[in-house]
Amino acid sequence: MRVHMPGTGDTALRAADSCSQPRLESSNPGAPSQTFGCSIFPSSMATAARRAGATLQWEERGDVTCPLLFIQLNQLLSTPAGLEWREMARWIKFEEKVEDGGERWSTPHVPALPLHSLFQLRTCLQKGTMLLDLDATSFKEIIDKALSEQPEEAELQPALREHLAALLLLQPQHQPTKSLLQLLTELGLSPCRGKAKDRSEPRTQVSKTPLKEQLRNRFKKKVPPGAEAAHVAVGEVEFLEKPFTAFIRLRHGVSLGSLAEVSLPSRFLFILLGPPRVKAYHEVGRAMATLLTDEVSLAQHPGMGWAWNGDTRTPLLCRLQWRTEDGASCLLSQGLLCHRATVDPLDQQPHGNGDMTAAGDRASPGHPCSGDELERTGRLFGGLLRDIQRKAPWYGSDFSDALHPQCLSAVLYIYLATVTNAITFGGMLGDATANMQGVLESFLGTAFAGFFFCLFSGQPLTILSSTGPVLVFERLLFSFSQDHSLDYLEFRLWIGLWVGFFGVVLVATEASHLVRYFTRFTEEGFCALISLIFIYDSLKKMLSLADAFPINWQYRLDNVTSYSCTCNLSSPAHSSTGNDTSLPSPLTTWQPPATPAGLSRTQCLDRGGHLLGTSCQYVPDVTLMSFLLFGGTFLLCIALKRFRSSRYFPVGVRKLVSDFAVILAILASCVVDAVLGLETPKLLVPSELKWVAAARPFCSPQPTNPARGWIIFPFGANPWWVCLLSAVPAVLVTILIFMDQQITAVILNRSEYKLQKGAGFHLDLLCVSLLMVVTSVTGLPWYVSATVISLAHMESLRKESATSAPGEHPEFLGIREQRLTGLAVFILMGVSVFMAPVLKHIPMPVLYGVFLHMGVTALNSIQLMDRVRLLLMPAKHQPDLAYLRHVPLRRVHLFTIIQLLCLALLWLLKSTVAAIIFPVMV
Amino acid sequence: MRVHMPGTGDTALRAADSCSQPRLESSNPGAPSQTFGCSIFPSSMATAARRAGATLQWEERGDVTCPLLFIQLNQLLSTPAGLEWREMARWIKFEEKVEDGGERWSTPHVPALPLHSLFQLRTCLQKGTMLLDLDATSFKEIIDKALSEQPEEAELQPALREHLAALLLLQPQHQPTKSLLQLLTELGLSPCRGKAKDRSEPRTQVSKTPLKEQLRNRFKKKVPPGAEAAHVAVGEVEFLEKPFTAFIRLRHGVSLGSLAEVSLPSRFLFILLGPPRVKAYHEVGRAMATLLTDEVSLAQHPGMGWAWNGDTRTPLLCRLQWRTEDGASCLLSQGLLCHRATVDPLDQQPHGNGDMTAAGDRASPGHPCSGDELERTGRLFGGLLRDIQRKAPWYGSDFSDALHPQCLSAVLYIYLATVTNAITFGGMLGDATANMQGVLESFLGTAFAGFFFCLFSGQPLTILSSTGPVLVFERLLFSFSQDHSLDYLEFRLWIGLWVGFFGVVLVATEASHLVRYFTRFTEEGFCALISLIFIYDSLKKMLSLADAFPINWQYRLDNVTSYSCTCNLSSPAHSSTGNDTSLPSPLTTWQPPATPAGLSRTQCLDRGGHLLGTSCQYVPDVTLMSFLLFGGTFLLCIALKRFRSSRYFPVGVRKLVSDFAVILAILASCVVDAVLGLETPKLLVPSELKWVAAARPFCSPQPTNPARGWIIFPFGANPWWVCLLSAVPAVLVTILIFMDQQITAVILNRSEYKLQKGAGFHLDLLCVSLLMVVTSVTGLPWYVSATVISLAHMESLRKESATSAPGEHPEFLGIREQRLTGLAVFILMGVSVFMAPVLKHIPMPVLYGVFLHMGVTALNSIQLMDRVRLLLMPAKHQPDLAYLRHVPLRRVHLFTIIQLLCLALLWLLKSTVAAIIFPVMV
Repeated sequence: MRVHMPGTGDTALRAADSCSQPRLESSNPGAPSQTFGCSIFPSSMATAARRAGATLQWEERGDVTCPLLFIQLNQLLSTPAGLEWREMARWIKFEEKVEDGGERWSTPHVPALPLHSLFQLRTCLQKGTMLLDLDATSFKEIIDKALSEQPEEAELQPALREHLAALLLLQPQHQPTKSLLQLLTELGLSPCRGKAKDRSEPRTQVSKTPLKEQLRNRFKKKVPPGAEAAHVAVGEVEFLEKPFTAFIRLRHGVSLGSLAEVSLPSRFLFILLGPPRVKAYHEVGRAMATLLTDEVSLAQHPGMGWAWNGDTRTPLLCRLQWRTEDGASCLLSQGLLCHRATVDPLDQQPHGNGDMTAAGDRASPGHPCSGDELERTGRLFGGLLRDIQRKAPWYGSDFSDALHPQCLSAVLYIYLATVTNAITFGGMLGDATANMQGVLESFLGTAFAGFFFCLFSGQPLTILSSTGPVLVFERLLFSFSQDHSLDYLEFRLWIGLWVGFFGVVLVATEASHLVRYFTRFTEEGFCALISLIFIYDSLKKMLSLADAFPINWQYRLDNVTSYSCTCNLSSPAHSSTGNDTSLPSPLTTWQPPATPAGLSRTQCLDRGGHLLGTSCQYVPDVTLMSFLLFGGTFLLCIALKRFRSSRYFPVGVRKLVSDFAVILAILASCVVDAVLGLETPKLLVPSELKWVAAARPFCSPQPTNPARGWIIFPFGANPWWVCLLSAVPAVLVTILIFMDQQITAVILNRSEYKLQKGAGFHLDLLCVSLLMVVTSVTGLPWYVSATVISLAHMESLRKESATSAPGEHPEFLGIREQRLTGLAVFILMGVSVFMAPVLKHIPMPVLYGVFLHMGVTALNSIQLMDRVRLLLMPAKHQPDLAYLRHVPLRRVHLFTIIQLLCLALLWLLKSTVAAIIFPVMV
Repeated sequence: MRVHMPGTGDTALRAADSCSQPRLESSNPGAPSQTFGCSIFPSSMATAARRAGATLQWEERGDVTCPLLFIQLNQLLSTPAGLEWREMARWIKFEEKVEDGGERWSTPHVPALPLHSLFQLRTCLQKGTMLLDLDATSFKEIIDKALSEQPEEAELQPALREHLAALLLLQPQHQPTKSLLQLLTELGLSPCRGKAKDRSEPRTQVSKTPLKEQLRNRFKKKVPPGAEAAHVAVGEVEFLEKPFTAFIRLRHGVSLGSLAEVSLPSRFLFILLGPPRVKAYHEVGRAMATLLTDEVSLAQHPGMGWAWNGDTRTPLLCRLQWRTEDGASCLLSQGLLCHRATVDPLDQQPHGNGDMTAAGDRASPGHPCSGDELERTGRLFGGLLRDIQRKAPWYGSDFSDALHPQCLSAVLYIYLATVTNAITFGGMLGDATANMQGVLESFLGTAFAGFFFCLFSGQPLTILSSTGPVLVFERLLFSFSQDHSLDYLEFRLWIGLWVGFFGVVLVATEASHLVRYFTRFTEEGFCALISLIFIYDSLKKMLSLADAFPINWQYRLDNVTSYSCTCNLSSPAHSSTGNDTSLPSPLTTWQPPATPAGLSRTQCLDRGGHLLGTSCQYVPDVTLMSFLLFGGTFLLCIALKRFRSSRYFPVGVRKLVSDFAVILAILASCVVDAVLGLETPKLLVPSELKWVAAARPFCSPQPTNPARGWIIFPFGANPWWVCLLSAVPAVLVTILIFMDQQITAVILNRSEYKLQKGAGFHLDLLCVSLLMVVTSVTGLPWYVSATVISLAHMESLRKESATSAPGEHPEFLGIREQRLTGLAVFILMGVSVFMAPVLKHIPMPVLYGVFLHMGVTALNSIQLMDRVRLLLMPAKHQPDLAYLRHVPLRRVHLFTIIQLLCLALLWLLKSTVAAIIFPVMV
């Protein structure tokens, strides 16, 4: 069920807020009643607030941040061995309780407090001791001060005071956070030991140094850096006549030894001990802890948790509600907490960790606000200079940021995708241009262009590739050249030179600023079209496999004897004499004498024979096996990707599996294929280069078509006016390249990806233009940004926060923006020729399965798909998308339908030759 | 994220509770503070309560049920056309609001109220008019009375009063609930019309008769039967000096014409109009509505929604919290509502629908409490008599209850499963007994035994089938008979007679009461074992297909010429002359002359030849196609079953698809198979009966083995002492049958299934015993209850509540307990012989996929699997299972591990011949 919360859709990115604004958001947009949420009990709460901090400076609450608190609630329990403090609950952002069985931490949840306990807490704070900004160095000192500074009316007798101090100084029993493995190991060691655990002696005092188990505590890594500890201690004691309450705020965070479960500097203490009468002390303690956790955490990470994903909605609704219904609390806690933060804002510095600060700084140079990057300077090459200025400071980090195992997975994944793509496009180009550009050129070109682009471009996450429109253009150009007896490569060289020139002109005139006018409509249409083509192509290739390896659907088991295929060497004489069993294999021992046996298919065809028989045209099993591999790889990719959000296994394992999902899926499918041993079509890179000995001291490989060289000469083959004529098609190509390149760049720089290092639209275009010149001169294919592979590249480099409070989903932090993965991919690409023995074990259907997965992922990443789903969804099941609250549903549907119609139109156009004049279409 | 709520795991089954207990459950098990939740403002709230009903009888709140309320909130808005009432929110169980765009109902959600509005509401109720148990027949009358009975201090001037009355009598604008289709149609008709909807004239008065659109309203079906309406009207009016408030409770539900969105008898009205000052009227109105909805709905369906599934947790937590934090509200609303229910509990009768009453009655005769059914009477056949007494009253309804389309799906599903099972077991029995019992006997026996059992048994949802242990026993018995030259069928007849006798003795002595001592441990072990065997068998059969249709994994495309298969008629003369091309097919035009061409495999083998060649032993494509069909069917079954809980399409469509999931999956797979046309192994029922002409006027089919007849004679073939000796194996078979039958019966009668009509353990055993006698005499296989198929049968007959409040998950109401589906299955079974032309299109791999799905479903239905999953889950991701809160995790893990070890041991034993002496193992 969906839960209601307004205006949360886009609040996730709000910058750190001050604690000063209670931000009482209502679940009802039209409700004006929130304004009095905080003033229900103005007199009493204000009194409490006044007591809380005499120096309260409401005016000074600027942009201070309060560190997160780790709060531990210890309760005094009577055990057979006497009274004992035991940890009963803890908070970082959400509450965790020790459950009934006493063996397990509950799920992190939002605390629900009885209203009454808040009132009791208020009474406690009004009547009890309150020490603010206390200077103390040990727990004993704090206790002594708290006991001695009792208000007159609550003064304790010295004996009682001593008794109380001794009690408070007892070492509390912490509830261990056990991993699954530990639990199972313990079970194996002593299955029936039950609760008699290896607790430390119960009657010891709080030690001054952290205990061994504290340091070892696995929970520590859940505590955010810079956090401080708060202790809440509640309990019933027989010897007290009336409750003893103390709230202590320390001036500086002080390490109090073994008091808390994890060793952190402590800041707050709340003690409530009383006669066993009302029995509500536990709830009052929870109320105090909740107050402490609530405002602080909200102030610290206003964006965190507001993101509307998955399960966080539950706590959020309730938190909101809690705050709304008991608006009083915000006043109280702010009085206590923000004041402190104001008093010494520098105090937290020692605990703050370097990374966070660095990240903060990083955001400053140029946040990826497309307005900034695409703003027009009005000077020649002004945009380009700005791009370089923007990107240059990051250049070092573009390499250092790549040191993460995730990058390894990304490299392998994208490498395989790129190789497959290069082979596919290489094959098609070879087919279109009579091998003027073939698979070898495609490999070399991809490796070179990609490497160059990753090294110098503005957005190194982009992956270059041949694209559909270029292919269509090359095909047209080649046939035009042949029809008019022009030299194709020379003609193409001139077009490339012109395109390069036009490109530089576009860079100089900052034409890229036009990109700003691309709306969501255009962007989504383009991305959807490309993704659909990806999906369509992978399916088409699978079906073409069925053509290449036809299945005999009419095969009947009973007619097994009628299926055969023999070689018929065309001349009749041959077929009658035909005893040239040149290769008598053991499999062909028995053969009808007149048949030229033992000739394999190729041998037969080589000798000019042809195959005759009912089974010649069919290939058993290969197609179906390919489909099994294809489907299996696709489903496995999806399942492993989703494993991240499954409930099984610790988060580390899940993350690893999910990061390497595609590689694992490919590996698994390859193993299955290898074990079964069927002759499925494999990935074959050109491994046998034909080397031509040149005059130079090294050999250079021969191009696919021996008629051409590696350098195309601009003059000689064609009439002189061709170089001027080339400008006409060059305009077309320039538009095509410009649109293709820039729309992809816009999609990659979407704000959802939280890119930190900014884009470089002008720089990217310059790189592409220069590459056009180089590839034209060397006769290699032309390259543009490939949307889907680039998106997959980014997707595989997602960064998520490692330490998150229990119960919190890890936050999406952005993409690992660096140049190294791209470089590695294209270096691998370059040396692929030598990896042929490894690569040839990868079946093509597996790679097509990966392509399908890429297409589906890219398609799902756009809002259009969400809206298409809305078309099929009854209103009450619709997710709570921000736009649905403000735009009438019929409008949304209308927009979706128009977009779909445009998409259909584009698809139709794309299928015709008109594709070339609509450069938006790939 | 999991959310915390105590003691809700097993509250789902609690009987209807009274409204009298506030049931303030805390989210903290140890918290004692809840007791004062309601008494925070004792004085003021009690005053309000006292004002609410002068005749309040707190002592009389017995077991009364309040009907559910449909509550509508109308707000006064100023439009260009003047003031207008517009529906802004509605409640049945959860709140739905009209969203910002004004075009869409929000998702149903739990209302979050600002505390302040509750206080304002209290003030309003204290100061305003309150008319309780008013007798009125029209809205006008109510308004008049409300306006005239103002408290003195709030007396209105006559002119003002008239003005107010006119305003209140305006027809409110209801927000339509549009279906997806309507929305899209409207979009198609006039995409840009926007908000100018076809509203009725705004200035008309509330009509006395329901409007057309009210009667047409699709929302009506969401309103539970017997519900009444409450109206909340709030708004700002310029001409009022101070707020006008009225709360009206009618003595009887009165239809107020077009006031509410749906035409229901109205019971409550709350009016709040005031000067445009505080602007919080909307929130106060919401608070009133929430109070009205909260207690009533909880009192009505205490179990509803507490079930801990899926998304309902969110509203529940918040509801709980709301009730906890503002415990005050429960007092107030109870004062207002439960009182009424006490005053006239018969009042709701006219609105109650027949079905509910019937269901209530039904539960009375014998609720399936195993203690009752298995109690020992101490008299001979006492249990049997009780069973008959218990089941007899239901016999009529056992047929009438089957009139639902779901049953059609169940019949087809179970029929296909049973046919497959009969063929499988028939084949194996034929193999074990040299066709003394074959597929034909298996068909006839299953049809007869199943029909008889469904007609007379105590638990007609059970499906009889041959089971593993019986098969093992028959195999042993047959080889024993052959070794000792005994007549197998006669020997078996005597064993059957003895088993029948022992069975009757067990029934007479009420031995079934021992079933009470089966614990969860035994039950789950048994069910898990059977399910695993099901899964294992389906996979094994698929692998045996790979043996039957071997794939040539070494096939190389290039060697296509070397693969052939020819017929070698053994004598050398034959092979040289061999021009007997009896069937020259067009495919075999070219053949090496010496080969005996055109002979099919069977022809060749019939003539004593043998097949020679490299392709004879291989069958292309069939195995892989089978695996594709197998996997496809399994995945499709799962996907379609899960479609019920998807977000797409209205609930009716989803339910239908989910109910027919298995049938749809089978159909889809069959269509795919038929279109491709490959010769996959098909379901072949014995269609060619060999009819023997008997002296009687009708022909009877001949048994599989012609050596036997349809009646086995008890004497003649074996020595006389064999009939006494038979008692020894009969004891074994009796134990086997007894255990197998009764454990299955216990599993089927689990309380989770909410069976209403009770079980009949003794009656079932009697039926099985009598069937033993009959099947022994006629030489048919023996039958016992089959756990997995019976579970699938029940699963396909799940009943869920049709009308559920928006936002509520449909409630599981139980199983359609009836005899008709079983009878239909076995009648179909009997006539299967004539359906062979249809059935032969169903590929076996498809049915194996269904079997796999059945096994997996049965395995997932036991708690053991939940606990196995816990082993892999970190504590914080564990679902909030009731036992996890009270049993330490290590204990749970220990129990699971022991259970798994026992299961492994059982599996090992089952794989040996020892299976026969452990009748628990199937």
